[in-house]
Amino acid sequence: MTMAWFRNLKKLSLTKPPLRSTNPHPFLPSTFLLSHFSSHPIPDAAAEAAELSRPPGLGPTVSGEKPRVVVLGSGWAGCRLMKGLDTSIYDVVCVSPRNHMVFTPLLASTCVGTLEFRSVAEPIGRIQPSISREPGSYFFLANCTSVNTDEHSVQCETVTDGLNTLKPWRFKLSYDKLIIALGSQPLTFGIHGVKEHAIFLREVYHAQEIRRKLLLNLMLSDVPGISVEEKRRLLHCVVVGGGPTGVEFSGELSDFIIKDVTQRYAHVKDYIQVTLIEANEILSSFDDRLRHYATKQLTKSGVQLVRGIVKDVKPQSIILNDGSEVPYGLLVWSTGVGPSPFVNSLEVPKSPGGRIGIDEWLRVPAVEDVFAIGDCSGFLESTGKQVLPALAQRCQDFIATIFGY
Amino acid sequence: MTMAWFRNLKKLSLTKPPLRSTNPHPFLPSTFLLSHFSSHPIPDAAAEAAELSRPPGLGPTVSGEKPRVVVLGSGWAGCRLMKGLDTSIYDVVCVSPRNHMVFTPLLASTCVGTLEFRSVAEPIGRIQPSISREPGSYFFLANCTSVNTDEHSVQCETVTDGLNTLKPWRFKLSYDKLIIALGSQPLTFGIHGVKEHAIFLREVYHAQEIRRKLLLNLMLSDVPGISVEEKRRLLHCVVVGGGPTGVEFSGELSDFIIKDVTQRYAHVKDYIQVTLIEANEILSSFDDRLRHYATKQLTKSGVQLVRGIVKDVKPQSIILNDGSEVPYGLLVWSTGVGPSPFVNSLEVPKSPGGRIGIDEWLRVPAVEDVFAIGDCSGFLESTGKQVLPALAQRCQDFIATIFGY
Repeated sequence: MTMAWFRNLKKLSLTKPPLRSTNPHPFLPSTFLLSHFSSHPIPDAAAEAAELSRPPGLGPTVSGEKPRVVVLGSGWAGCRLMKGLDTSIYDVVCVSPRNHMVFTPLLASTCVGTLEFRSVAEPIGRIQPSISREPGSYFFLANCTSVNTDEHSVQCETVTDGLNTLKPWRFKLSYDKLIIALGSQPLTFGIHGVKEHAIFLREVYHAQEIRRKLLLNLMLSDVPGISVEEKRRLLHCVVVGGGPTGVEFSGELSDFIIKDVTQRYAHVKDYIQVTLIEANEILSSFDDRLRHYATKQLTKSGVQLVRGIVKDVKPQSIILNDGSEVPYGLLVWSTGVGPSPFVNSLEVPKSPGGRIGIDEWLRVPAVEDVFAIGDCSGFLESTGKQVLPALAQRCQDFIATIFGY
Repeated sequence: MTMAWFRNLKKLSLTKPPLRSTNPHPFLPSTFLLSHFSSHPIPDAAAEAAELSRPPGLGPTVSGEKPRVVVLGSGWAGCRLMKGLDTSIYDVVCVSPRNHMVFTPLLASTCVGTLEFRSVAEPIGRIQPSISREPGSYFFLANCTSVNTDEHSVQCETVTDGLNTLKPWRFKLSYDKLIIALGSQPLTFGIHGVKEHAIFLREVYHAQEIRRKLLLNLMLSDVPGISVEEKRRLLHCVVVGGGPTGVEFSGELSDFIIKDVTQRYAHVKDYIQVTLIEANEILSSFDDRLRHYATKQLTKSGVQLVRGIVKDVKPQSIILNDGSEVPYGLLVWSTGVGPSPFVNSLEVPKSPGGRIGIDEWLRVPAVEDVFAIGDCSGFLESTGKQVLPALAQRCQDFIATIFGY
């Protein structure tokens, strides 16, 4: 996409001095238009009129049209399903506030520059190209706000973050099959200040914020006029939660300190510290031997492991349940996930943990044509299955069995 | 920097089920600390006391220390100078609100994804590694607020954008040689609304903002419930200023539309339009033949060229001097550059255009040990030289002659 002709042009121009000062009649290209927008392509007028007369949204599909699969969410489960969907049989409409899938296990590596952000995000349009090309398939940057299972429709609202010139608007989508793949959201246990002052590690913009803050703190801590105490606070990276995310991120941070900070921020290298705070034990779902190993490795690489429960989060420090105050410059919160308010609001039977209850075919019982997959779903106790394995990996079987091919 | 051991650990853990539920005594690693911060390295106490007793900043160098070169700015000129400086002879201290150099000619390509942002930004610490390692060399993330040439010192203030927990603070730097390399800033000609609603194209964050807005508009324009008129507005990309930046960016945009939008945003491809507005002629400092060529190429690739002067910038439209209103979804402003308020505030003789006046040795006359280089400087009329060629390229000669090697 580089403009080779313009690059050449610039090169040429250096070999010949500009003629402007000797040219009394400035050049006026004949292509300069006097009226604006005249070159806008005019879409078919009838189609345009039809578009305006319809209520906002996509109405029920009619005979002759492909059945419409509406997918809520663009995480592992939703994307796996869309990727496998046969778009010669179905139209697919994805509704999500995020236009890409995040390869979450590698997100921690992007915070310190090991990986580039682009490397861990895959556009939905590349996962399922039909959504950007087929006339009946779409990606809508929006949140689903309610589901009407009787009417077979969902109500949505656009996401217009940061566009102060544009108010969000609502629209309705009719579905033939509805796939709820809305994932989960970080748990804060109602602790005051977490949302305001801590950074989660679930989205690309979280990783960007962490990287930005880390580098800013490293630079500011080197500026004259800062006290040693404040320098230590700025460079204290606190990770709350010793699950895989917290452990991986702590490890990446300590690698960054050992390999990069000592080289690139040598003046302040003795002031930086990583602390991992966990209420119980780190990697609690893994076995003893592995926990021991992780503990040894983290400690060896300089990560301070602290057992404690966070009681309060202030702008520059956290308070633990033993009353001690821990100053921080960067606070990353990864204490597990739970259902989103939207999932909580759905009036359907839930599985343990508040997930959307599903039967062994991933169907939401008692309503027609509604399925739930991935982290937002769990097998109902009546199925006799363990709650958890309704994971993205199951989607392929699911597609094959439910969608009949 | 990847944590191979942890990846292995995760793999291992899959081969063996977690033992947690069968283990009544949770594992408590002995390395969990009860007191916090005990593992903080304690810097030398005397050094610490000395640091606190000094007024914030770097005082005059004393006999036995290397002379200190303070460089204000981290653009082409400042970076070229720092790169060439012999740090075995001089200590170098760079003061800039930006910790990297931007390869500006390629910035337009990053707006549409042709290049990654990282590819056009080079950290100062990589350009001159001494600033992150040598005891007397530093990079300070700050702005210079005033120069005291009698005292041989500059007053600075830290940049703490986005760190709401930290107020900026001031510090003083003594210099042996001062290099002012502060560049220029975009001209808005006092037109109302430019700073609020238009995006410049000078920094990496500008390019990021342009890319973000472009993609957001593309996605929103495809959501049901939007009128055709609003769709056209959202997808109208207006570039004001037909210099090299505006022309290059318009070309990149049209390439993006031809190659990417038609594929990835096929539903809305007929509604997107690029308009380049210029008061006179595009590429006015280049010769006729090249202007003709550029005009032909831009027109061929669908860019609408409009001759006009912008009178007012509103949140969703601009008003031209003929009274016509041009709605836009993205507005990029590149109408040239001029001196910054700081350069204006300096009470030194100026060259035409408000640049810091310099003699043929790039010295600021009448004051000692102060030099100005790059876009912020211009030869004084008394030198008999053309104003302009005090460019970054001159730095090498400059270093060789002024700094005596």
